[in-house]
Amino acid sequence: MKAIAVDIDGTITNQNREICVNAINALRKAEVNGYPIILVTGNVLCAAKMVSVMVGTSGGIVSENGGYIQTRKKNLVLGDIKKSILAYNHLKSEHNIKKTEFSEIRLSEIAIVRNIDEETVKESVKNFDVEVYDTKFAIHLTDPEVNKGKSLEIVAKDMGINVDEIMAVGDSENDLEFLEVAGFKVAVANADKELKENSDYVTQKPYGDGTAEASQ
Amino acid sequence: MKAIAVDIDGTITNQNREICVNAINALRKAEVNGYPIILVTGNVLCAAKMVSVMVGTSGGIVSENGGYIQTRKKNLVLGDIKKSILAYNHLKSEHNIKKTEFSEIRLSEIAIVRNIDEETVKESVKNFDVEVYDTKFAIHLTDPEVNKGKSLEIVAKDMGINVDEIMAVGDSENDLEFLEVAGFKVAVANADKELKENSDYVTQKPYGDGTAEASQ
Repeated sequence: MKAIAVDIDGTITNQNREICVNAINALRKAEVNGYPIILVTGNVLCAAKMVSVMVGTSGGIVSENGGYIQTRKKNLVLGDIKKSILAYNHLKSEHNIKKTEFSEIRLSEIAIVRNIDEETVKESVKNFDVEVYDTKFAIHLTDPEVNKGKSLEIVAKDMGINVDEIMAVGDSENDLEFLEVAGFKVAVANADKELKENSDYVTQKPYGDGTAEASQ
Repeated sequence: MKAIAVDIDGTITNQNREICVNAINALRKAEVNGYPIILVTGNVLCAAKMVSVMVGTSGGIVSENGGYIQTRKKNLVLGDIKKSILAYNHLKSEHNIKKTEFSEIRLSEIAIVRNIDEETVKESVKNFDVEVYDTKFAIHLTDPEVNKGKSLEIVAKDMGINVDEIMAVGDSENDLEFLEVAGFKVAVANADKELKENSDYVTQKPYGDGTAEASQ
Protein backbone atom coordinates (compact mmCIF):
# COMPACT_ATOMS: atom_id res chain seq x y z
CA MET A 1 0.00 0.00 0.00
CA LYS A 2 1.39 3.38 -0.99
CA ALA A 3 -1.39 5.90 -0.33
CA ILE A 4 -4.79 6.33 1.31
CA ALA A 5 -7.82 7.78 -0.46
CA VAL A 6 -10.64 8.98 1.79
CA ASP A 7 -14.04 10.48 1.27
CA ILE A 8 -14.84 13.51 3.49
CA ASP A 9 -18.51 13.77 4.57
CA GLY A 10 -19.56 10.82 6.70
CA THR A 11 -16.11 9.23 6.42
CA ILE A 12 -13.85 11.67 8.27
CA THR A 13 -16.80 13.71 9.63
CA ASN A 14 -19.91 12.85 11.62
CA GLN A 15 -23.46 13.16 10.28
CA ASN A 16 -23.33 16.93 10.94
CA ARG A 17 -20.19 17.27 8.79
CA GLU A 18 -17.99 18.02 11.81
CA ILE A 19 -14.51 16.65 11.32
CA CYS A 20 -13.26 13.93 13.68
CA VAL A 21 -10.05 14.85 15.49
CA ASN A 22 -9.06 11.18 15.70
CA ALA A 23 -9.29 10.99 11.92
CA ILE A 24 -7.17 14.17 11.58
CA ASN A 25 -4.51 12.69 13.87
CA ALA A 26 -4.53 9.33 12.07
CA LEU A 27 -4.29 10.88 8.61
CA ARG A 28 -1.43 13.16 9.72
CA LYS A 29 0.38 10.15 11.14
CA ALA A 30 -0.10 8.29 7.85
CA GLU A 31 1.37 11.29 5.95
CA VAL A 32 4.40 11.34 8.30
CA ASN A 33 4.84 7.58 7.78
CA GLY A 34 4.99 8.06 4.01
CA TYR A 35 1.40 7.34 3.00
CA PRO A 36 0.05 10.42 1.22
CA ILE A 37 -3.65 11.10 1.69
CA ILE A 38 -5.90 11.76 -1.30
CA LEU A 39 -9.26 13.41 -0.59
CA VAL A 40 -12.12 12.07 -2.73
CA THR A 41 -15.35 14.01 -2.29
CA GLY A 42 -18.52 15.46 -3.73
CA ASN A 43 -17.60 18.87 -2.33
CA VAL A 44 -16.43 21.76 -4.52
CA LEU A 45 -12.65 21.98 -4.98
CA CYS A 46 -12.24 25.13 -2.89
CA ALA A 47 -13.87 23.48 0.13
CA ALA A 48 -12.01 20.20 -0.34
CA LYS A 49 -8.73 22.10 -0.70
CA MET A 50 -9.35 23.84 2.61
CA VAL A 51 -9.80 20.43 4.25
CA SER A 52 -6.59 19.29 2.56
CA VAL A 53 -4.70 22.32 3.88
CA MET A 54 -6.22 22.11 7.37
CA VAL A 55 -5.53 18.38 7.74
CA GLY A 56 -2.23 18.52 5.85
CA THR A 57 -2.80 16.04 3.02
CA SER A 58 -0.45 15.83 0.05
CA GLY A 59 -1.80 13.28 -2.44
CA GLY A 60 -4.21 15.43 -4.39
CA ILE A 61 -7.96 15.94 -4.53
CA VAL A 62 -10.90 14.43 -6.38
CA SER A 63 -13.79 16.90 -5.99
CA GLU A 64 -17.33 17.15 -7.39
CA ASN A 65 -17.65 13.33 -7.43
CA GLY A 66 -14.81 13.05 -9.92
CA GLY A 67 -15.77 15.98 -12.13
CA TYR A 68 -12.99 18.31 -11.01
CA ILE A 69 -9.61 17.12 -9.80
CA GLN A 70 -6.37 18.57 -8.49
CA THR A 71 -3.49 16.19 -9.02
CA ARG A 72 0.07 16.90 -7.90
CA LYS A 73 0.65 18.29 -11.39
CA LYS A 74 -2.52 20.01 -12.54
CA ASN A 75 -6.20 20.93 -12.12
CA LEU A 76 -8.61 19.23 -14.54
CA VAL A 77 -12.35 19.70 -15.15
CA LEU A 78 -13.54 16.29 -16.33
CA GLY A 79 -17.33 16.45 -16.08
CA ASP A 80 -19.62 18.24 -18.53
CA ILE A 81 -21.92 20.46 -16.47
CA LYS A 82 -24.23 21.05 -19.47
CA LYS A 83 -25.70 17.57 -18.91
CA SER A 84 -26.45 18.43 -15.29
CA ILE A 85 -28.01 21.78 -16.22
CA LEU A 86 -30.46 20.12 -18.64
CA ALA A 87 -31.50 17.56 -16.01
CA TYR A 88 -31.68 20.22 -13.28
CA ASN A 89 -33.92 22.48 -15.35
CA HIS A 90 -36.33 19.61 -16.02
CA LEU A 91 -36.31 18.57 -12.35
CA LYS A 92 -36.96 22.15 -11.32
CA SER A 93 -39.97 22.36 -13.63
CA GLU A 94 -41.49 19.41 -11.75
CA HIS A 95 -40.32 19.91 -8.17
CA ASN A 96 -39.44 22.66 -5.72
CA ILE A 97 -35.69 22.17 -5.46
CA LYS A 98 -32.72 24.30 -4.50
CA LYS A 99 -29.03 24.14 -5.33
CA THR A 100 -26.58 23.76 -2.44
CA GLU A 101 -24.44 26.67 -1.24
CA PHE A 102 -21.55 27.71 -3.49
CA SER A 103 -23.25 26.10 -6.52
CA GLU A 104 -21.93 29.04 -8.55
CA ILE A 105 -18.39 27.67 -8.21
CA ARG A 106 -19.31 24.05 -8.98
CA LEU A 107 -17.75 23.46 -12.40
CA SER A 108 -18.78 19.98 -13.50
CA GLU A 109 -22.05 18.94 -11.81
CA ILE A 110 -25.02 20.28 -9.83
CA ALA A 111 -25.75 19.44 -6.20
CA ILE A 112 -29.20 20.02 -4.74
CA VAL A 113 -30.38 20.36 -1.18
CA ARG A 114 -31.71 17.08 0.18
CA ASN A 115 -35.35 18.09 0.70
CA ILE A 116 -36.43 15.70 -2.06
CA ASP A 117 -35.85 11.96 -2.09
CA GLU A 118 -33.45 10.23 -4.43
CA GLU A 119 -36.08 8.05 -6.12
CA THR A 120 -38.19 11.08 -7.04
CA VAL A 121 -35.12 12.73 -8.58
CA LYS A 122 -34.18 9.56 -10.46
CA GLU A 123 -37.70 9.18 -11.87
CA SER A 124 -37.81 12.82 -12.96
CA VAL A 125 -34.45 12.84 -14.76
CA LYS A 126 -34.51 9.26 -16.08
CA ASN A 127 -34.37 10.43 -19.70
CA PHE A 128 -31.40 12.72 -19.09
CA ASP A 129 -27.73 11.83 -19.35
CA VAL A 130 -26.85 12.20 -15.67
CA GLU A 131 -25.97 9.97 -12.75
CA VAL A 132 -27.96 10.69 -9.56
CA TYR A 133 -26.05 10.27 -6.30
CA ASP A 134 -27.53 10.64 -2.83
CA THR A 135 -24.54 11.16 -0.53
CA LYS A 136 -26.83 11.69 2.50
CA PHE A 137 -25.48 15.26 2.54
CA ALA A 138 -26.78 16.36 -0.89
CA ILE A 139 -28.19 14.90 -4.09
CA HIS A 140 -25.84 15.24 -7.04
CA LEU A 141 -26.60 15.31 -10.76
CA THR A 142 -23.31 14.19 -12.26
CA ASP A 143 -21.99 13.52 -15.74
CA PRO A 144 -22.05 9.68 -16.04
CA GLU A 145 -18.73 9.83 -17.90
CA VAL A 146 -16.94 10.74 -14.66
CA ASN A 147 -16.86 9.14 -11.25
CA LYS A 148 -14.59 9.08 -8.21
CA GLY A 149 -12.87 5.90 -9.41
CA LYS A 150 -11.80 7.07 -12.87
CA SER A 151 -10.62 10.36 -11.39
CA LEU A 152 -8.67 8.64 -8.63
CA GLU A 153 -6.78 6.78 -11.36
CA ILE A 154 -5.61 10.10 -12.83
CA VAL A 155 -4.61 11.47 -9.42
CA ALA A 156 -2.70 8.24 -8.67
CA LYS A 157 -0.92 8.39 -12.03
CA ASP A 158 0.31 11.93 -11.28
CA MET A 159 1.65 10.58 -7.95
CA GLY A 160 3.56 7.88 -9.81
CA ILE A 161 1.55 5.03 -8.29
CA ASN A 162 -1.20 2.65 -9.40
CA VAL A 163 -4.70 2.71 -7.93
CA ASP A 164 -4.28 -0.88 -6.77
CA GLU A 165 -1.61 0.42 -4.40
CA ILE A 166 -4.22 2.61 -2.70
CA MET A 167 -6.39 1.89 0.33
CA ALA A 168 -9.79 3.58 -0.14
CA VAL A 169 -12.18 4.52 2.65
CA GLY A 170 -15.79 5.62 2.09
CA ASP A 171 -19.34 5.59 3.43
CA SER A 172 -21.76 6.27 0.61
CA GLU A 173 -23.03 5.08 -2.78
CA ASN A 174 -20.94 7.69 -4.59
CA ASP A 175 -17.87 6.01 -3.08
CA LEU A 176 -18.52 2.65 -4.78
CA GLU A 177 -16.47 3.43 -7.87
CA PHE A 178 -13.38 4.60 -6.06
CA LEU A 179 -13.43 1.69 -3.67
CA GLU A 180 -13.83 -0.56 -6.71
CA VAL A 181 -10.56 0.56 -8.35
CA ALA A 182 -8.55 0.59 -5.11
CA GLY A 183 -6.33 -2.26 -3.93
CA PHE A 184 -7.88 -2.39 -0.48
CA LYS A 185 -11.47 -1.28 0.08
CA VAL A 186 -12.71 -0.06 3.45
CA ALA A 187 -16.25 0.92 4.44
CA VAL A 188 -16.77 2.75 7.72
CA ALA A 189 -19.36 1.22 10.10
CA ASN A 190 -22.02 3.79 9.13
CA ALA A 191 -21.63 3.02 5.40
CA ASP A 192 -24.41 2.04 3.00
CA LYS A 193 -25.16 -1.69 2.85
CA GLU A 194 -24.04 -1.94 -0.78
CA LEU A 195 -20.69 -0.31 -0.01
CA LYS A 196 -20.10 -2.67 2.90
CA GLU A 197 -20.86 -5.66 0.66
CA ASN A 198 -18.24 -4.46 -1.79
CA SER A 199 -15.52 -3.85 0.81
CA ASP A 200 -12.56 -5.88 1.99
CA TYR A 201 -12.97 -4.51 5.48
CA VAL A 202 -15.78 -2.84 7.42
CA THR A 203 -14.52 -0.83 10.38
CA GLN A 204 -15.89 -1.47 13.85
CA LYS A 205 -16.27 2.22 14.55
CA PRO A 206 -18.40 4.65 12.54
CA TYR A 207 -17.51 7.92 10.79
CA GLY A 208 -14.05 9.45 11.41
CA ASP A 209 -13.23 6.99 14.14
CA GLY A 210 -13.65 4.25 11.55
CA THR A 211 -11.22 6.00 9.21
CA ALA A 212 -8.77 6.40 12.10
CA GLU A 213 -9.15 2.68 12.83
CA ALA A 214 -8.46 1.76 9.18
CA SER A 215 -5.49 4.11 8.82
CA GLN A 216 -3.53 2.74 11.73
CA MET B 1 -18.90 37.73 27.16
CA LYS B 2 -21.39 36.26 24.69
CA ALA B 3 -19.36 35.04 21.70
CA ILE B 4 -15.81 34.39 20.51
CA ALA B 5 -14.41 35.73 17.24
CA VAL B 6 -11.28 34.00 15.92
CA ASP B 7 -9.00 34.44 12.98
CA ILE B 8 -8.09 31.20 11.15
CA ASP B 9 -4.54 31.15 9.70
CA GLY B 10 -1.90 31.40 12.42
CA THR B 11 -4.57 31.62 15.14
CA ILE B 12 -6.26 28.22 15.02
CA THR B 13 -3.67 26.77 12.61
CA ASN B 14 0.12 26.46 12.70
CA GLN B 15 2.46 28.25 10.28
CA ASN B 16 1.69 25.57 7.64
CA ARG B 17 -2.04 26.29 7.93
CA GLU B 18 -2.73 22.92 9.59
CA ILE B 19 -5.57 23.21 12.06
CA CYS B 20 -4.87 22.55 15.74
CA VAL B 21 -7.00 19.77 17.25
CA ASN B 22 -6.80 21.41 20.69
CA ALA B 23 -8.31 24.56 19.16
CA ILE B 24 -11.08 22.51 17.50
CA ASN B 25 -11.90 20.85 20.82
CA ALA B 26 -11.85 24.16 22.72
CA LEU B 27 -14.05 25.95 20.17
CA ARG B 28 -16.55 23.07 20.15
CA LYS B 29 -16.68 23.17 23.93
CA ALA B 30 -17.30 26.93 23.82
CA GLU B 31 -20.18 26.37 21.36
CA VAL B 32 -21.69 23.73 23.66
CA ASN B 33 -21.35 26.12 26.59
CA GLY B 34 -23.33 28.79 24.74
CA TYR B 35 -20.55 30.91 23.24
CA PRO B 36 -21.02 30.91 19.46
CA ILE B 37 -17.82 31.12 17.42
CA ILE B 38 -17.43 33.67 14.63
CA LEU B 39 -14.67 33.04 12.09
CA VAL B 40 -12.87 36.21 10.96
CA THR B 41 -10.43 35.60 8.13
CA GLY B 42 -8.75 36.73 4.94
CA ASN B 43 -9.77 33.48 3.25
CA VAL B 44 -12.50 33.27 0.62
CA LEU B 45 -15.98 32.55 2.00
CA CYS B 46 -16.19 29.04 0.55
CA ALA B 47 -12.98 27.98 2.35
CA ALA B 48 -13.95 29.73 5.59
CA LYS B 49 -17.39 28.11 5.45
CA MET B 50 -15.79 24.68 5.16
CA VAL B 51 -13.78 25.42 8.32
CA SER B 52 -16.99 26.59 9.99
CA VAL B 53 -18.78 23.36 9.02
CA MET B 54 -15.84 21.11 9.93
CA VAL B 55 -15.29 22.74 13.33
CA GLY B 56 -19.01 23.30 13.94
CA THR B 57 -19.17 27.07 14.46
CA SER B 58 -22.48 28.92 14.48
CA GLY B 59 -21.84 32.65 14.85
CA GLY B 60 -21.23 33.61 11.24
CA ILE B 61 -18.23 34.39 9.06
CA VAL B 62 -16.18 37.44 8.15
CA SER B 63 -14.17 36.48 5.05
CA GLU B 64 -11.87 38.35 2.65
CA ASN B 65 -10.66 40.60 5.49
CA GLY B 66 -14.14 42.00 5.98
CA GLY B 67 -15.07 42.35 2.32
CA TYR B 68 -17.52 39.45 2.21
CA ILE B 69 -19.54 38.29 5.20
CA GLN B 70 -22.06 35.62 6.09
CA THR B 71 -24.16 36.63 9.07
CA ARG B 72 -26.85 34.44 10.60
CA LYS B 73 -29.30 36.25 8.32
CA LYS B 74 -27.56 37.00 5.04
CA ASN B 75 -24.49 37.11 2.81
CA LEU B 76 -23.10 40.57 2.02
CA VAL B 77 -20.33 41.74 -0.29
CA LEU B 78 -18.98 44.91 1.34
CA GLY B 79 -15.68 45.59 -0.41
CA ASP B 80 -15.31 47.09 -3.87
CA ILE B 81 -12.98 44.81 -5.81
CA LYS B 82 -12.55 47.42 -8.57
CA LYS B 83 -10.17 49.32 -6.28
CA SER B 84 -8.07 46.20 -5.81
CA ILE B 85 -8.03 45.44 -9.54
CA LEU B 86 -6.64 48.91 -10.36
CA ALA B 87 -3.89 48.54 -7.74
CA TYR B 88 -3.15 44.96 -8.78
CA ASN B 89 -2.78 45.88 -12.45
CA HIS B 90 -0.31 48.62 -11.56
CA LEU B 91 1.63 46.33 -9.22
CA LYS B 92 1.75 43.66 -11.92
CA SER B 93 3.19 46.17 -14.42
CA GLU B 94 6.10 46.72 -12.01
CA HIS B 95 6.62 43.32 -10.40
CA ASN B 96 6.31 39.63 -11.15
CA ILE B 97 3.37 38.75 -8.93
CA LYS B 98 0.75 36.01 -8.84
CA LYS B 99 -2.74 35.81 -7.38
CA THR B 100 -3.42 33.12 -4.77
CA GLU B 101 -5.42 29.97 -5.58
CA PHE B 102 -9.17 30.43 -6.02
CA SER B 103 -8.73 34.15 -6.75
CA GLU B 104 -11.52 33.76 -9.33
CA ILE B 105 -14.03 33.36 -6.46
CA ARG B 106 -12.67 36.23 -4.36
CA LEU B 107 -15.41 38.86 -4.60
CA SER B 108 -14.16 41.93 -2.77
CA GLU B 109 -10.34 42.04 -2.76
CA ILE B 110 -7.24 40.49 -4.36
CA ALA B 111 -4.75 38.28 -2.53
CA ILE B 112 -1.29 37.71 -3.98
CA VAL B 113 1.28 35.02 -3.31
CA ARG B 114 3.84 36.14 -0.77
CA ASN B 115 6.93 36.11 -3.01
CA ILE B 116 7.18 39.90 -2.77
CA ASP B 117 7.64 41.88 0.42
CA GLU B 118 4.95 44.05 1.91
CA GLU B 119 6.98 47.28 1.72
CA THR B 120 7.58 46.85 -2.00
CA VAL B 121 3.85 46.35 -2.54
CA LYS B 122 2.98 49.37 -0.39
CA GLU B 123 5.44 51.59 -2.28
CA SER B 124 4.11 50.45 -5.65
CA VAL B 125 0.42 50.99 -4.87
CA LYS B 126 0.76 54.05 -2.63
CA ASN B 127 -1.32 56.20 -4.98
CA PHE B 128 -4.15 53.66 -5.14
CA ASP B 129 -7.17 53.43 -2.88
CA VAL B 130 -6.30 50.11 -1.25
CA GLU B 131 -5.16 48.84 2.12
CA VAL B 132 -2.19 46.44 1.96
CA TYR B 133 -2.20 43.61 4.52
CA ASP B 134 0.55 41.05 4.98
CA THR B 135 -1.06 38.18 6.88
CA LYS B 136 2.14 36.07 6.66
CA PHE B 137 0.10 33.70 4.48
CA ALA B 138 -0.64 36.11 1.62
CA ILE B 139 -0.54 39.83 0.79
CA HIS B 140 -3.98 41.35 0.40
CA LEU B 141 -5.07 44.42 -1.56
CA THR B 142 -8.27 45.39 0.21
CA ASP B 143 -10.83 48.17 -0.10
CA PRO B 144 -9.94 50.57 2.79
CA GLU B 145 -13.65 51.10 3.42
CA VAL B 146 -13.92 47.57 4.85
CA ASN B 147 -12.02 45.75 7.58
CA LYS B 148 -12.53 42.83 9.91
CA GLY B 149 -13.74 45.11 12.71
CA LYS B 150 -16.53 46.90 10.85
CA SER B 151 -17.70 43.60 9.42
CA LEU B 152 -17.66 41.89 12.80
CA GLU B 153 -20.04 44.60 14.01
CA ILE B 154 -22.56 43.59 11.32
CA VAL B 155 -22.20 39.88 12.11
CA ALA B 156 -22.66 40.62 15.84
CA LYS B 157 -25.75 42.72 15.14
CA ASP B 158 -27.36 39.83 13.24
CA MET B 159 -26.63 37.62 16.26
CA GLY B 160 -28.41 40.12 18.49
CA ILE B 161 -25.28 41.04 20.45
CA ASN B 162 -22.85 43.95 20.61
CA VAL B 163 -19.21 43.66 19.58
CA ASP B 164 -18.14 44.66 23.07
CA GLU B 165 -19.64 41.37 24.25
CA ILE B 166 -17.19 39.48 22.03
CA MET B 167 -13.76 38.05 22.85
CA ALA B 168 -11.53 38.35 19.78
CA VAL B 169 -8.44 36.23 19.08
CA GLY B 170 -5.90 36.98 16.34
CA ASP B 171 -2.25 36.86 15.30
CA SER B 172 -1.66 39.32 12.49
CA GLU B 173 -1.85 42.97 11.44
CA ASN B 174 -5.13 42.38 9.60
CA ASP B 175 -6.61 41.35 12.95
CA LEU B 176 -5.97 44.75 14.59
CA GLU B 177 -9.35 46.21 13.63
CA PHE B 178 -11.46 43.34 14.89
CA LEU B 179 -9.56 43.13 18.15
CA GLU B 180 -10.04 46.88 18.49
CA VAL B 181 -13.85 46.71 18.42
CA ALA B 182 -14.09 43.61 20.65
CA GLY B 183 -14.73 43.71 24.40
CA PHE B 184 -11.79 41.47 25.23
CA LYS B 185 -8.74 41.33 22.95
CA VAL B 186 -6.45 38.31 22.79
CA ALA B 187 -3.23 37.90 20.81
CA VAL B 188 -1.74 34.41 20.48
CA ALA B 189 1.93 34.07 21.47
CA ASN B 190 3.08 34.08 17.83
CA ALA B 191 1.24 37.33 17.09
CA ASP B 192 2.76 40.49 15.59
CA LYS B 193 4.27 42.88 18.13
CA GLU B 194 1.73 45.59 17.34
CA LEU B 195 -1.19 43.21 17.91
CA LYS B 196 0.24 42.10 21.23
CA GLU B 197 0.62 45.73 22.31
CA ASN B 198 -3.04 46.33 21.57
CA SER B 199 -4.31 43.24 23.41
CA ASP B 200 -5.79 42.69 26.85
CA TYR B 201 -4.17 39.28 27.01
CA VAL B 202 -1.31 37.54 25.21
CA THR B 203 -1.54 33.76 25.42
CA GLN B 204 1.37 31.73 26.74
CA LYS B 205 1.08 29.19 23.96
CA PRO B 206 1.35 29.97 20.23
CA TYR B 207 -1.05 29.28 17.35
CA GLY B 208 -4.08 27.04 17.97
CA ASP B 209 -2.90 26.07 21.42
CA GLY B 210 -3.04 29.75 22.31
CA THR B 211 -6.62 29.99 21.08
CA ALA B 212 -7.49 26.87 23.09
CA GLU B 213 -5.89 28.50 26.14
CA ALA B 214 -7.91 31.70 25.67
CA SER B 215 -11.20 29.90 25.02
CA GLN B 216 -11.20 27.89 28.20
